[in-house]
Amino acid sequence: MSIDLNSDLGEGFGVWRLGDDDALLDVVTSANVACGFHAGDASTMRAVCVSATARGVAVGAQVSYRDLAGFGRRFIDVEPARLADEVLYQIGALDACARAAGTRVVYVKPHGALYNATVHHDAQAGAVVDGVRAFGELPILGLPGSRLLTAAEAAGLPAVREAFADRGYTPEGSLVPRGEPGALLTETDAVVARAVRLAEAGEVVAVDGSVLPMPARSLCLHGDTPGAVGHARAVRAALDAAGIAVAAFAG
Amino acid sequence: MSIDLNSDLGEGFGVWRLGDDDALLDVVTSANVACGFHAGDASTMRAVCVSATARGVAVGAQVSYRDLAGFGRRFIDVEPARLADEVLYQIGALDACARAAGTRVVYVKPHGALYNATVHHDAQAGAVVDGVRAFGELPILGLPGSRLLTAAEAAGLPAVREAFADRGYTPEGSLVPRGEPGALLTETDAVVARAVRLAEAGEVVAVDGSVLPMPARSLCLHGDTPGAVGHARAVRAALDAAGIAVAAFAG
Amino acid sequence: MSIDLNSDLGEGFGVWRLGDDDALLDVVTSANVACGFHAGDASTMRAVCVSATARGVAVGAQVSYRDLAGFGRRFIDVEPARLADEVLYQIGALDACARAAGTRVVYVKPHGALYNATVHHDAQAGAVVDGVRAFGELPILGLPGSRLLTAAEAAGLPAVREAFADRGYTPEGSLVPRGEPGALLTETDAVVARAVRLAEAGEVVAVDGSVLPMPARSLCLHGDTPGAVGHARAVRAALDAAGIAVAAFAG
Amino acid sequence: MSIDLNSDLGEGFGVWRLGDDDALLDVVTSANVACGFHAGDASTMRAVCVSATARGVAVGAQVSYRDLAGFGRRFIDVEPARLADEVLYQIGALDACARAAGTRVVYVKPHGALYNATVHHDAQAGAVVDGVRAFGELPILGLPGSRLLTAAEAAGLPAVREAFADRGYTPEGSLVPRGEPGALLTETDAVVARAVRLAEAGEVVAVDGSVLPMPARSLCLHGDTPGAVGHARAVRAALDAAGIAVAAFAG
Repeated sequence: MSIDLNSDLGEGFGVWRLGDDDALLDVVTSANVACGFHAGDASTMRAVCVSATARGVAVGAQVSYRDLAGFGRRFIDVEPARLADEVLYQIGALDACARAAGTRVVYVKPHGALYNATVHHDAQAGAVVDGVRAFGELPILGLPGSRLLTAAEAAGLPAVREAFADRGYTPEGSLVPRGEPGALLTETDAVVARAVRLAEAGEVVAVDGSVLPMPARSLCLHGDTPGAVGHARAVRAALDAAGIAVAAFAG
Repeated sequence: MSIDLNSDLGEGFGVWRLGDDDALLDVVTSANVACGFHAGDASTMRAVCVSATARGVAVGAQVSYRDLAGFGRRFIDVEPARLADEVLYQIGALDACARAAGTRVVYVKPHGALYNATVHHDAQAGAVVDGVRAFGELPILGLPGSRLLTAAEAAGLPAVREAFADRGYTPEGSLVPRGEPGALLTETDAVVARAVRLAEAGEVVAVDGSVLPMPARSLCLHGDTPGAVGHARAVRAALDAAGIAVAAFAG
Repeated sequence: MSIDLNSDLGEGFGVWRLGDDDALLDVVTSANVACGFHAGDASTMRAVCVSATARGVAVGAQVSYRDLAGFGRRFIDVEPARLADEVLYQIGALDACARAAGTRVVYVKPHGALYNATVHHDAQAGAVVDGVRAFGELPILGLPGSRLLTAAEAAGLPAVREAFADRGYTPEGSLVPRGEPGALLTETDAVVARAVRLAEAGEVVAVDGSVLPMPARSLCLHGDTPGAVGHARAVRAALDAAGIAVAAFAG
Repeated sequence: MSIDLNSDLGEGFGVWRLGDDDALLDVVTSANVACGFHAGDASTMRAVCVSATARGVAVGAQVSYRDLAGFGRRFIDVEPARLADEVLYQIGALDACARAAGTRVVYVKPHGALYNATVHHDAQAGAVVDGVRAFGELPILGLPGSRLLTAAEAAGLPAVREAFADRGYTPEGSLVPRGEPGALLTETDAVVARAVRLAEAGEVVAVDGSVLPMPARSLCLHGDTPGAVGHARAVRAALDAAGIAVAAFAG
């Protein structure tokens, strides 16, 4: 029994930087690497693959809508067939970078608005799965209960569930929307406690105090703020201290 | 002994179309497929790969500067390391489309201004070769005498020489620059005669009437004008009639 | 009393072309010029402005989502404040081209998915109006009954209603969705008859045969197929023959 | 007699940020605002215009090659006519943002590789001037002795010379290329002393110790590193303390 830690990486573009990739690569076991559609360019992608490989971190394709100007955070009503092709393109581009670094793309996770859309949007969830299958039999990392994971399983792809150590959960097990009370945990102690309970017991305390089963194989950590990097380090240290194995789910 | 016919394909983008891909796929044996940097999007690329595979046409990566607005026709003074990464990215993206279509990328040819630059520009020629090698040991298709082919050979990659049936040659064996007298052959008979002589004898008549050795393994055909498609068909028919084997050089 | 004829123009990008701008400029009185977000580049925009000015055709800004890859045909859930800024940017860029050609941007019409979205989407309709007002007191051209025209009127901008000579109407006065029976009129006689009745009587016959009031100040003509250009010419000829004044609504 | 201080601003894009715009807006009198081609989006541009206007800082268009991926730092061999159109487009887009903020674009300065190219490249220098003139009679800010300023003067546009407080000069008055010894002044005292001497006496000490006349109307300050912001503040404070008037050259 082990838990994976994943984080979004390589989310700069050209001269612009975002987040502290090096700090997170010392903490996580799976790197969701931006593929050039919402962030990331060829040089960024290749550099992250080299760094991840050097640390034994698994490389995943963080596929997105084609939207650099919006960082992939706006829903785009793209046709499913085109979306599948774009997913295929992104995985292929990253896989070339990964192979040049001595590794491979071993899983796929949608980014931003595409992640959110595929929780409920059957056609786009199916399109992501179609794009992944066109590339190969890779696991898909996503939200428990999402249409995306349902579609992945239906297509015979490994569906890997993730949870969030710093997000609030409703009693129904969905994430409290950002902007609402309890959406974000900001205290390091609370984040760490949630992470350990998720990893050890597969459960989480919802905003109303009820305890929910949440059997996640991976925890998603953020790194785009100084505080987030601190949380990520604290979570990793606590898991190590508790004797919980931290290991990638794929690769 | 055989000759290959190559042409640029998949050079639309989004709603926009360019050239008659279907007509050319019935003529050529190698398809230089645009990879999204000067033209081509994921759906175009995948569709061309499917069509090429159905006809037994070899798929090559037509790599370019990142320049949709200029169709890759303007020299960009990009750093060699970045250029190598972008070549790797483009090949990887196309290879994913090719594999989904049941084939693979089996060669690489630079497009437009990058093709022209790598005739003389050592650093960019080396960068293209580095990008190809980072992907794998693929042949590079280019101009005889170019720094690109020299760098490919030095790196142990197959260097494949091409000639142009519809372009004028100087007595030194280089192409007459567009806009100068004799730069373009416009009569079908002249284009066909040049193609057959190139394929049979490995020689070409320069603008001053001198006969030059030009041992090309592939002939480049254009398809972006109705006349060009007619030329391409006539060349293929004449080669077939002359009993010259027409076959891809790779794949 | 007069009727305006408007059409989308300048919808190429770089080397790519779409539609027959010259043919349409001989027919219409208002040119909806693409501003670089779904199509159009600086040179295309300036050239269309020059041609329009030479023919006395009014220049309007055909503003769009930022989506070259999708030609602005996919809904994007962009934040209203950002959308307003993007509308402002597009109008300003086109207005510079128009002034260099000796004219000005004299109206605004949203393109594609933004046009469709602002029929019902209050926040995006308001954002378009905000962007226009930030530039100046320009008329907005749109669908009768749309939230866009309602918002324009509420903001004190002229709201100009358009109708479609080649589209089917429901008994409620909305357009029959593409793909459904009766969505498109393909016979030239039917298109011409509809155009003349719209211009003369301000009414249209719906798909169920009922006659609806449709007091449009402008008719939208398409030019992206050879048939469409023929329809456009026939409509203009019929209006001229019927003695109906054809004139721009703005400028 | 007064000196202007100019700096590049609004050089983020989407979620990405670069430099400390607020800090620099408290120091400079002219803001070179990125127009969306190398950096900057509509919202960034409008926000900078609002901030600049609130502080009485003049707004200039920092026009660039179309190259977000390369931040406008790579030479692109774009056709002059197209470059002129792109300059016109960028000024127009920014001017709309400026007018919405209650001001206007009052000068133009090329960015990065375009700045460097137009020092020697006659055709591109002429194209920038053509683009500016197509918009209006705006001053152009550039390097003394550049083809750009010569072309501006020949066209009847005000040519405004700038100098660099933190760059080394050759005895011939050109900048020491980056990467060579003496290219950059890193000590605050040296930067401040150079700025004051430039402003008071119109002269600069070259790398060989010789004193050159350098009658600049504006000093360019950088803000993309914490040290650079410190230099900028120190320069402004020293000029104020020396009783030198600091004022925009245009607007």
